[in-house]
Amino acid sequence: MAKIAPVKGTRDFYPDRMAIRNWIVEGWRSTSLRNGFVEYDGPIFEYLQLYTQKSGDEIAGQLFSFTDRGGRDLAIRPEITPTLARMVNQQINSLPRPIKWFSVPRLCRAERPQKGRLREFFQWNIDIIGSDSILADAECIYTAVDYLRSIGLTSNDVVVKISSRAMLAELLKDIGFAEDQLDTIYALLDKRLKIPAETFAEMTKEKIPDQTLRDKLMKLFSSSFNNLISSVIKAPDNILKPIKDLEKLFDYLNLMGIKDYYEFDINIVRGLAYYTGAVYEIFDRKQPLRALCGGGRYDNLLEGLGGPQIPATGFGLGDVVLEIMLQERGLLKTAVGQVDVFIINAGVELYDKAIEITCQLREKGFTAVFSYKHGANVGKQLKQASEQNARCAVILGSETQTQNEITLKNLANGNQQKINLSKFLTQPGNYL
Amino acid sequence: MAKIAPVKGTRDFYPDRMAIRNWIVEGWRSTSLRNGFVEYDGPIFEYLQLYTQKSGDEIAGQLFSFTDRGGRDLAIRPEITPTLARMVNQQINSLPRPIKWFSVPRLCRAERPQKGRLREFFQWNIDIIGSDSILADAECIYTAVDYLRSIGLTSNDVVVKISSRAMLAELLKDIGFAEDQLDTIYALLDKRLKIPAETFAEMTKEKIPDQTLRDKLMKLFSSSFNNLISSVIKAPDNILKPIKDLEKLFDYLNLMGIKDYYEFDINIVRGLAYYTGAVYEIFDRKQPLRALCGGGRYDNLLEGLGGPQIPATGFGLGDVVLEIMLQERGLLKTAVGQVDVFIINAGVELYDKAIEITCQLREKGFTAVFSYKHGANVGKQLKQASEQNARCAVILGSETQTQNEITLKNLANGNQQKINLSKFLTQPGNYL
Repeated sequence: MAKIAPVKGTRDFYPDRMAIRNWIVEGWRSTSLRNGFVEYDGPIFEYLQLYTQKSGDEIAGQLFSFTDRGGRDLAIRPEITPTLARMVNQQINSLPRPIKWFSVPRLCRAERPQKGRLREFFQWNIDIIGSDSILADAECIYTAVDYLRSIGLTSNDVVVKISSRAMLAELLKDIGFAEDQLDTIYALLDKRLKIPAETFAEMTKEKIPDQTLRDKLMKLFSSSFNNLISSVIKAPDNILKPIKDLEKLFDYLNLMGIKDYYEFDINIVRGLAYYTGAVYEIFDRKQPLRALCGGGRYDNLLEGLGGPQIPATGFGLGDVVLEIMLQERGLLKTAVGQVDVFIINAGVELYDKAIEITCQLREKGFTAVFSYKHGANVGKQLKQASEQNARCAVILGSETQTQNEITLKNLANGNQQKINLSKFLTQPGNYL
Repeated sequence: MAKIAPVKGTRDFYPDRMAIRNWIVEGWRSTSLRNGFVEYDGPIFEYLQLYTQKSGDEIAGQLFSFTDRGGRDLAIRPEITPTLARMVNQQINSLPRPIKWFSVPRLCRAERPQKGRLREFFQWNIDIIGSDSILADAECIYTAVDYLRSIGLTSNDVVVKISSRAMLAELLKDIGFAEDQLDTIYALLDKRLKIPAETFAEMTKEKIPDQTLRDKLMKLFSSSFNNLISSVIKAPDNILKPIKDLEKLFDYLNLMGIKDYYEFDINIVRGLAYYTGAVYEIFDRKQPLRALCGGGRYDNLLEGLGGPQIPATGFGLGDVVLEIMLQERGLLKTAVGQVDVFIINAGVELYDKAIEITCQLREKGFTAVFSYKHGANVGKQLKQASEQNARCAVILGSETQTQNEITLKNLANGNQQKINLSKFLTQPGNYL
């Protein structure tokens, strides 16, 4: 039989990598829960149309699609937001608002694998649906920071760069851009942090031939938030409102205690067309081109996906870039499930006893194992115990033991003690 | 935009159903770990060939397959054993034996949805690779029972029916069947517990026209294990060996303390061709046609899947039938993530304070939330707290409070007490 390879861009999770994945996903889960979100999930595949009708072209071009025996056109999910919209729509009248949901879906995209981008990955998704309050945006950002902080990433490691699509639209129109030029400008701005400065300058020249307009745009781009605030203080309401909203968002983030973790950055626009309010990306401070999370307010998206007209805000944070960042900083927790105790027999006549004790310890919740090798000597069994990373060994039948005694050996430091077997089995937690 | 439905045979996991799924999967995980298994996983899709080259026809006919842009033929995994074989094969020289691995994969099969059978489901897989000891079979069976017992299924609810393919082959040859008839007989036997007796009798007549042979088969089928043992006690070694092995398996299961949970049943043969030793299925005692788990020894399968020649044993237990069984018995745990405390303000001037306290409680690990509705009165906020199933409410600014006091209200029994705010925030665990 031929050996068959894994498909490029997918990952095999051997136990050591699986432990990392579980640790990451459990961190997402516990952070979500303590911030008041509840978990949902959908199917791994949906009708193809769910993705082609509204997702950005970029995502629609990356679908793994197929036709089932019944002739249905289906696709593996490349993102979970369309599923979320479908599910919310189905139960829109019975779900209490605001809907604070999270998910940790496995997603697949048919793109070319490269560092930080795979064809299969996991993504933490947080969404608050049914509230148009700036507080909902603040909660999402806080929740992302709460997670990153909890795994050891400080404000020196990561930064949430925040802007507002609503504000940007007004400012661009104010300096002379027409409504129908905005999408072009968004696409341009979205690239600014990700490509070399000269390339960006060339692109800008090409897209905006008018030098006056270009200069105005460049001036706007270099604005600090304070500049912006003071320059528009007497601006008409349409401009003032989104800036004031952003200011309020910053106030809330300060109140929540994460002042050091965010900054205003007018370059943040997000590639997708559907954002309507605050937008943000989280970057590695040491590698400013590396984004690990993106999100924002998208008040029209659910309607566009066949859902109701209802305000929404949220983000997605993938596991691939996160894992690279944590690896580089030595912050990955890699503990594979540890064996509490390995039961060793010093003679085959004690083999059955070893099995019995193993099962009794398991019933009390301890991870207990023994060797399948009938007749293996103590040395061989100890070797196996250390191969399996056992914390302790219980040895039955050592020569120095009296009747009903066991020897408990700490495999980390080699210390050992003799214990009465019944006492040990009654309260193993006192010894293990 | 059109409303799009979910694909038939898939499930939407709204938070209440997601909580059940998480509870089931976490039970599988913790049971696996305490029995010394470590978790692995593979990709959701593999090369199509991995499934077509060796899986049973039944599974190969149920694949969701597709071709990617690079012209590769791929398929969503219908089972994880082929992936296991591939992964073990890749690292065969570095993995310490025995390999005790578990997985909780999401699997997809293109079959017609019906009660207990969906097109997408989760399956607990346990495998021990690299040991030909009967003990490895016993550990797998023990681990399955350990899980079922831990969630409240007693030996009155479930039974592991055990037989041996090796034994059956020898017994069938002994009463006169030819080697090349065995697969037919396996297929026939596999149906016996799942179809009406008359249908079975008709099928038997058709497949085995010779009445003498048929009678011998029927006599064999009605054997108890003790009958079998005594009838073959003087049999040649080829027959005696697999019976003695099975006897040893039962001895080990008794030793492990699960005597009431299993019984010998010669009808258990398993549909798939690849089993070589002990085989078993776990049934609902109250619905004898309902199997929730199947497994056994398959010493040649890994080699057949492009892996090494290495002994292996294991089982698969799906979530769909299990959930139905637990639901019927009222054993499903359905707690959606609970909110520990809802922070309520008795006046908008305390709104910011409420946000600050919320975040401080979250930092200490409590699930804390507040209302996004600026200016909502206490009654409305209490209503929202109870909608979100909060355990407690902290009320800021009640008229009867002195400065720096909060009111803590237990939302289950309505009891309330006043507490100094700083004391509360220093040790919230003392009050919540």
